[in-house]
Amino acid sequence: MGRLRGRAHRAWQRTLASVSVGAPQRVPPAALAWVDPPAGPAIELLDQTQLPVCESVMTCTDVAQLVDAIQRLVVRGAPLLGIAGAYGVALAAARGGDVPAAAAAIEAARPTAVNLGRGARLALGAYLDALDGSGQVADAAQAARSASGLTAADRAARAALERARSIEAADARACADMAKTGLALVPQGARILTHCNTGSLVTAGSGTAFGLILGAHRAGRLGMLWIGETRPLLQGSRLTAFEASRAGLPHQVLPDAAAASLFAAGQVDLVVIGADRIAADGSVANKVGSYGLAVLARHHRVPFVVVAPTSTIDLDTADGAAIVIEQRPAGEVTHLAGQAIAPAGSTAYNPAFDVTPPDLVTAIVTERGVIHPVTVGNLHALGA
Amino acid sequence: MGRLRGRAHRAWQRTLASVSVGAPQRVPPAALAWVDPPAGPAIELLDQTQLPVCESVMTCTDVAQLVDAIQRLVVRGAPLLGIAGAYGVALAAARGGDVPAAAAAIEAARPTAVNLGRGARLALGAYLDALDGSGQVADAAQAARSASGLTAADRAARAALERARSIEAADARACADMAKTGLALVPQGARILTHCNTGSLVTAGSGTAFGLILGAHRAGRLGMLWIGETRPLLQGSRLTAFEASRAGLPHQVLPDAAAASLFAAGQVDLVVIGADRIAADGSVANKVGSYGLAVLARHHRVPFVVVAPTSTIDLDTADGAAIVIEQRPAGEVTHLAGQAIAPAGSTAYNPAFDVTPPDLVTAIVTERGVIHPVTVGNLHALGA
Repeated sequence: MGRLRGRAHRAWQRTLASVSVGAPQRVPPAALAWVDPPAGPAIELLDQTQLPVCESVMTCTDVAQLVDAIQRLVVRGAPLLGIAGAYGVALAAARGGDVPAAAAAIEAARPTAVNLGRGARLALGAYLDALDGSGQVADAAQAARSASGLTAADRAARAALERARSIEAADARACADMAKTGLALVPQGARILTHCNTGSLVTAGSGTAFGLILGAHRAGRLGMLWIGETRPLLQGSRLTAFEASRAGLPHQVLPDAAAASLFAAGQVDLVVIGADRIAADGSVANKVGSYGLAVLARHHRVPFVVVAPTSTIDLDTADGAAIVIEQRPAGEVTHLAGQAIAPAGSTAYNPAFDVTPPDLVTAIVTERGVIHPVTVGNLHALGA
Repeated sequence: MGRLRGRAHRAWQRTLASVSVGAPQRVPPAALAWVDPPAGPAIELLDQTQLPVCESVMTCTDVAQLVDAIQRLVVRGAPLLGIAGAYGVALAAARGGDVPAAAAAIEAARPTAVNLGRGARLALGAYLDALDGSGQVADAAQAARSASGLTAADRAARAALERARSIEAADARACADMAKTGLALVPQGARILTHCNTGSLVTAGSGTAFGLILGAHRAGRLGMLWIGETRPLLQGSRLTAFEASRAGLPHQVLPDAAAASLFAAGQVDLVVIGADRIAADGSVANKVGSYGLAVLARHHRVPFVVVAPTSTIDLDTADGAAIVIEQRPAGEVTHLAGQAIAPAGSTAYNPAFDVTPPDLVTAIVTERGVIHPVTVGNLHALGA
């Protein structure tokens, strides 16, 4: 990545401010950065499919590229997808495309990630509100210049971009608030097991689950971070270990199936994961493997904590059974790095997510407080 | 592999005899074959680290090569390791080496696999008994030719080889008996989840867990075989899917962590796995991930069945806590196909096995009958 721009620069400043003695000094590129004209309008994405081997940046100058990037998991993780969705709509607006169609295409890119659609819809709402406020639409709006020299379409595009920026800023604040709120749940010397990737690669701040873990480390409470590698796409070993290494956390990677023996050996004090969608009954959809960890945690009487902003709570989804689980291509399981690891013609069961019922979730940490126990009443009381 | 020899030819005949309509007609090379002079003495091993991409055969002409092959998992699986251990001693004897030292080296190659040491000790016992019977040892024995023209050392080497062959034959019979005995535990249309690899690649017959699954398929009872890929070395996707594909079984591979959602969806009727060692209290050491499946099976009220010959039962190991768990190199987790999948310097927790306590095991199927429930009394009653 060349010179630092916009959000990348702010992330760099944040990182410098938070570097502790002995921590590695390298600065990761930002997971997502909006690029203003004249270089833009564009969205820069750190290509997470290339990590940890290569830090390459993909520049999306239109929505089709962004949708492709979302589907290939170049950009991923619930909160960052919300931000990407909003910036995607801002990009369509700035480029003068069919903005509602762009929002719909972005929302359809990954059906389970509730934040993606919400981010796109919020930016679209800001765009349409600005247009409506002008009393103009389409070509007529393009032509109607105000005293500032901006057309109504310009103002609507700016409104969409401002909405995207406010979603990004709110997410950074939410990360800080979740880390602060959740710290009370972390005992001294905690050996924490996590799954998938939930840090600064998927949020505008320090992360959801990873943000809490990082906060625990900075508070001197982290004994060990166990990182499930998270097959098939290895977000744990590729990305979370990358973030843990950068932040100087004591950590070890493990095959997902080795977690059970860690529990049996009394080596896990706490499970901390993120969430892709939380239904109205408190059921948590998260990366496949999360539910198995919840069952293991219950069997071994270990707390199972979900860290997610309230934007992840979807009251329109009644319960776990109503959550649509994305099935991903068999090739993600049967091939690795272009090499076959199963015989030709083998099919694979490859759901992206699984659903943990609320009775297995000890607590949900949000930016507004901790939901414990996870009941419909407590979920609604938090103003979700 | 060139022309078929010895056991390979017999395996080919067995396969031909058992081919059902619609099943693939290709014949896999034998996992292990003894080679007599003049081409031998040697042990041919199908290199299982190369499957399913390449079927290459490694020829071991001395014990050091065999120990290396065992440690690199070129040859693997509890019953086949027992056979390999015995043939290894026969090889040392045929080559005129230090046979007790060779047996000790073989036994130390993988500490958790009880069959390996047992096979080596049995062949060593046959060798030493034959030497003792001659009243001769060492150089004196070499010189003492009988009426048949064989030296005492020749006869001892032949005794070791015969012992290895009898272990191999007994294992093939045990596979058939386990498959027959265990069939009563398989309901019609069963959707069976298995882990790791337990078929003809690791036994002299149709396998332990896989042998039962194959038997269920041939009896028309198998609805689906779910195969956990078994990270880090992917014995499930590389080897069990290979065997399932060859045998025409309906099957799908899955990331190990996706098993939990299969249980939750009611898609698993039975878990069937093998064992590397069974302690005197009924604790089962098997490929890492087995214990997690046992916890999931209990949570979802699904039977958890272990299929293992009685030779896997080790009454000298009191309980699960006494089982030595082999820790394998971190590189198996942090690298794949030569490529880093974790940042440089990341360490990994990589136990080869885990231990399932007897109260989570519904039944142990042996060649002598079914142990159910798994109690010390029932384990001893079977004459283990």
